[in-house]
Amino acid sequence: MGTENGDKWRKTAVVVIDMQKDFILPGAPMLVRDGEAIVPNVIKTVEVARNRGIPIIWVVREHDPLGRDVELFRRHLYGDGKPKPTSKGCVGAELVDGLLIQEGDYKLVKTRFSAFFNTNLHSYLQGIAVTNLVVIGVQTPNCIRQTVFDAVALDYQRVTVIIDATAAATPDIHIANIFDMKNVGVATPTLEEWCQS
Amino acid sequence: MGTENGDKWRKTAVVVIDMQKDFILPGAPMLVRDGEAIVPNVIKTVEVARNRGIPIIWVVREHDPLGRDVELFRRHLYGDGKPKPTSKGCVGAELVDGLLIQEGDYKLVKTRFSAFFNTNLHSYLQGIAVTNLVVIGVQTPNCIRQTVFDAVALDYQRVTVIIDATAAATPDIHIANIFDMKNVGVATPTLEEWCQS
Repeated sequence: MGTENGDKWRKTAVVVIDMQKDFILPGAPMLVRDGEAIVPNVIKTVEVARNRGIPIIWVVREHDPLGRDVELFRRHLYGDGKPKPTSKGCVGAELVDGLLIQEGDYKLVKTRFSAFFNTNLHSYLQGIAVTNLVVIGVQTPNCIRQTVFDAVALDYQRVTVIIDATAAATPDIHIANIFDMKNVGVATPTLEEWCQS
Repeated sequence: MGTENGDKWRKTAVVVIDMQKDFILPGAPMLVRDGEAIVPNVIKTVEVARNRGIPIIWVVREHDPLGRDVELFRRHLYGDGKPKPTSKGCVGAELVDGLLIQEGDYKLVKTRFSAFFNTNLHSYLQGIAVTNLVVIGVQTPNCIRQTVFDAVALDYQRVTVIIDATAAATPDIHIANIFDMKNVGVATPTLEEWCQS
């Protein structure tokens, strides 16, 4: 990594959200329908970020198998004989194939939509002097958007969503949410545009 | 108010968001285009809530005239000769005509989208044992939605958005956001349906 590159991206982190089997794989209990299609772009974003010296933060859900730390409206999924999505330690909570947490990456477990909600993400980012965030993963209306709006509220200087490395249940939902995020000052490049930036 | 009524709504509060002149009146600097049309329904919701013994929480923005407490992406609106929307003490920060803070109501000033962000709203609601929220006002994609998603994350038992007492810049934006909120378990009645509930 050259100094120029290092300087340019010095204050940036990439936040990868919920790219777990229970959200992404066909037939998964919490399937985000358009999620599987973005896996290659998520892999590519992480690769480009590593080349640029950008820290990677892997945000995942890992829930109590009894559902005691799940949002109220989803708690019925954790009863006897229920799928218990992204339960701590289960296969469904793993990242999809192709995504690997490497040494120096940061893993962060959340139990709500926003990666900032009741987590140490903000203090961690302040500790490494990050002011610019690039957010990717699933799904656009919930975890992506809530994380992004919280980042705006927390005065991150530049908040970016790579629009073809994020996904929702349908293209319409994805587009409507990207539109709203743009309206609050969020940058919304394609992966190709971000690679060339 | 009969005991039955009092019991039924005992754990509910109505949260009225940003019904201020600078967001609502024609020509206002932060105009939410479809905002003025809902004023009668906001007035009516408050009236029905009072009759049901439901506490009213008036959430407003009141910003530093120099913009030092405004989101970064809006700070350019607070320079010399700029409109400085909802500056503390200015006419634009007032509630629109027809909305009045009465004794026993609670006024809460926020500086970000969510009424929960860096405010005492959650502890206040816990203090008065409220578990159910009814959210109205402007605008659907920002302050309404962020407040609602935070309420879901905070495990409020029932979160309701009255869909014709909230508004956005366009019907499309409004509808897309109501759709997303419904998907996370939020109740979305019309005012008439809520009045009959």
